[in-house]
Amino acid sequence: MTKTSNKRDLLSIMDLSVADVEEIYTHAFALKEKHDARIATPVLAGCTLAMIFEKASLRTRSTFEIGIAQLGGNSIDLSNLNIGMGTRESVEDIARNLDRWCDLIMFRTFSRDRAEVVAREATAPVMNALTDEEHPCQALSDYMALMTILGTRDLSGFPIAFVGDGNNVCHSLMCLAAIMGMDFRAATPSTYEPGAEFLTWSMGVARSTGAKILVTNDPVEAVRGARAVYTDIWASMGQEHEHAERERVFRPYQVNTDLMAQAEPGAFAMHDLPARRGEEITNEVIDGKTSIVYDQAEHRLHAQKGIMVWLAEKAGVHAYSKDEG
Amino acid sequence: MTKTSNKRDLLSIMDLSVADVEEIYTHAFALKEKHDARIATPVLAGCTLAMIFEKASLRTRSTFEIGIAQLGGNSIDLSNLNIGMGTRESVEDIARNLDRWCDLIMFRTFSRDRAEVVAREATAPVMNALTDEEHPCQALSDYMALMTILGTRDLSGFPIAFVGDGNNVCHSLMCLAAIMGMDFRAATPSTYEPGAEFLTWSMGVARSTGAKILVTNDPVEAVRGARAVYTDIWASMGQEHEHAERERVFRPYQVNTDLMAQAEPGAFAMHDLPARRGEEITNEVIDGKTSIVYDQAEHRLHAQKGIMVWLAEKAGVHAYSKDEG
Amino acid sequence: MTKTSNKRDLLSIMDLSVADVEEIYTHAFALKEKHDARIATPVLAGCTLAMIFEKASLRTRSTFEIGIAQLGGNSIDLSNLNIGMGTRESVEDIARNLDRWCDLIMFRTFSRDRAEVVAREATAPVMNALTDEEHPCQALSDYMALMTILGTRDLSGFPIAFVGDGNNVCHSLMCLAAIMGMDFRAATPSTYEPGAEFLTWSMGVARSTGAKILVTNDPVEAVRGARAVYTDIWASMGQEHEHAERERVFRPYQVNTDLMAQAEPGAFAMHDLPARRGEEITNEVIDGKTSIVYDQAEHRLHAQKGIMVWLAEKAGVHAYSKDEG
Repeated sequence: MTKTSNKRDLLSIMDLSVADVEEIYTHAFALKEKHDARIATPVLAGCTLAMIFEKASLRTRSTFEIGIAQLGGNSIDLSNLNIGMGTRESVEDIARNLDRWCDLIMFRTFSRDRAEVVAREATAPVMNALTDEEHPCQALSDYMALMTILGTRDLSGFPIAFVGDGNNVCHSLMCLAAIMGMDFRAATPSTYEPGAEFLTWSMGVARSTGAKILVTNDPVEAVRGARAVYTDIWASMGQEHEHAERERVFRPYQVNTDLMAQAEPGAFAMHDLPARRGEEITNEVIDGKTSIVYDQAEHRLHAQKGIMVWLAEKAGVHAYSKDEG
Repeated sequence: MTKTSNKRDLLSIMDLSVADVEEIYTHAFALKEKHDARIATPVLAGCTLAMIFEKASLRTRSTFEIGIAQLGGNSIDLSNLNIGMGTRESVEDIARNLDRWCDLIMFRTFSRDRAEVVAREATAPVMNALTDEEHPCQALSDYMALMTILGTRDLSGFPIAFVGDGNNVCHSLMCLAAIMGMDFRAATPSTYEPGAEFLTWSMGVARSTGAKILVTNDPVEAVRGARAVYTDIWASMGQEHEHAERERVFRPYQVNTDLMAQAEPGAFAMHDLPARRGEEITNEVIDGKTSIVYDQAEHRLHAQKGIMVWLAEKAGVHAYSKDEG
Repeated sequence: MTKTSNKRDLLSIMDLSVADVEEIYTHAFALKEKHDARIATPVLAGCTLAMIFEKASLRTRSTFEIGIAQLGGNSIDLSNLNIGMGTRESVEDIARNLDRWCDLIMFRTFSRDRAEVVAREATAPVMNALTDEEHPCQALSDYMALMTILGTRDLSGFPIAFVGDGNNVCHSLMCLAAIMGMDFRAATPSTYEPGAEFLTWSMGVARSTGAKILVTNDPVEAVRGARAVYTDIWASMGQEHEHAERERVFRPYQVNTDLMAQAEPGAFAMHDLPARRGEEITNEVIDGKTSIVYDQAEHRLHAQKGIMVWLAEKAGVHAYSKDEG
């Protein structure tokens, strides 16, 4: 199998240019507009999305499955249980097989390496739906939710603070903020800062886009002036054994009413869910008036439809036509 | 999330009025007529049904999934395994998320409380597809099967006996019999009678509909003159540990040829399946000429399509339209 | 339930005549042609395929699920986990239930007996998607892949060697080779020859079709002059405990460059996957230029669409029509 020349993947926000992001959002908002008017958009009629999950999922699975259905296509759900990836069959072979039947592949896995293998072996575009390093679909959805709520697609200069673990979600939010010229601040405990690779990349992009990138250990410094405060679970999937240690270290980074009081009045509270209420975020905040966590979840659907249509376009994948014969 | 003003749920037969039941059956029979003529009925085109199962299912899962497909929509299957309801994420949060993407929600759970939480948090109509207390979709399907076989939608005065455990299925059958003016008799061992809440409600409704409701410990009294004899598994899902004790207590309530001989000649044998042949019902009866157990199963599809279309109508949910642009 | 008079099943290649095979391939190639031109083929619009898996599956599940979707229908996936076949409910009852809602049934099981029960109880056509004895969908797909690559639907006289375990895949390939007049050679260790039932049947058919059937313990004899060399995993699903013993016995039957050198130059390497690279086949061969293993996998989709349409036609199952009312 050799890739088609134009095929693109979305393994990382770092795969995207400013123009790419604009194209994705153009698709996503056009699709959302029709969705909200309940007009069908079968632009990928007959196309098949393969979904591979090595971790549990509510939002990702639901939104990809509903999303491709709304685009007129269908999905197959390949959990590790059924296909024995890496045990019953090699990752390479699974990718090469899926590639013969599927137009798009979505992969939630622990390891970036596996996602890269699938992307290399498949001519079909591959989407990273969470690895230990990144969560690009989440970041694209979160900023789209902000755009919808703010009524503008221009987020340049928008001050947003991520408070907690400099994890995969933080990485993708930071890199996408760099592309979009936002004012991004991450506050994490020492040794939990975002990875150097992602910081360096974001700093580099920021020079051309005018974005500001700040990494600090002081949550108050991060949220001061912020119009959105984002946090994530302290122990992600696969890190549950570190839970007690992490709870101690992260306690000062809890997003509660005290911390929110340091941000701009009316600042949005954001979280990618599932949340552990009372740990990284309090009930007052996540259930408060400025919480937009369910809007974020809703925009998973819209943003990912934009991503799928954009990737399909780049790869030359188009809808099946009706038989006129 | 606030509910839309007209949104209805189907958590309990006690949620329904006489007029509601008539409306549901009007939809269900109209859809069945087209189904039997193999005419497509995409009245919920583009709509999404979320299905949440905390217990095993063959009939419910199959018929809801096929039903929404036949209505032009699609379904997502959220088993507890994948979404970690109540552990990975709270029931409230799961409901609020699903509500952003889904038009209808179906829930099979142990606890009525959980179903009520989902109904409260979601603007989408919620259907109870089995709780420890009720099984409304089953009862609506069973009586629709009778209507089809009898060639009439009027079951007033129809004598039906439920013999066995006064369980969730018995509750829903009794309440619906009250609404429909039927002659309902339940024969159960002492302490296994239907719940007082359901009996009181049914008695109250019966006063206006002319239904007769009898609860007895004598199976012969219940089946005498009955034109249908219904039974259910003695130890339902979650009660397997009581199996030996229940087998002893329920033995006199077995539906066998001797008991059927006490009913009207030609009385139908009914069971919601799965059955434990040789326990609550004998092979001679369940495989006999008057058994309509597979008709009951078939009508799960038809009745539930009626329920979905009725709930969608009440909630203002309608099909996605084709793009004329 | 009684079968419709014309209903056919595909439990075994031995169910098929020469004319049947031609009809299946006529459907399959016509559907493939439109698929490759990305023209929709909703010839089973509205129809439902029930898929029952008692063993793991990647290719079978994906291709049946995608296949029925491309034919305009939908599928329900009933894994043993959810329906408790034979424990929660009898095989007979499950079949009779599914039959009320589904137009086609696909069954992957250990035991031929179970598949036969389902076929007997259901009026819907039943497809064997792997039993311990046979894998008819695989064989039909493999030879279709050869036809596509060779550019001809006539495989009469085509020399193909199966080297390894005389298992379910070998049985179906041999029987279908007999029907199609091919030159089939099986090389297996002693006591691992194909079953006498299948050999006798194939020999009998070969007399009228001109096929040649050879069973030997000498791999070189089998591959000499062969234009395709096929192998399969030494320890199939359910035989993993025999792995060490089988590895010793089968070692001389490895398909490697030495063995391929005994075949015709350019002979195709074939495998139904998943493969254990370095055991029954080496990397050099399976990843070599003449390997067609992913073409085989691709043709699962096309051949099975042909099978479904053919069975539907025989059973009088046709698409739901649009409502003109």
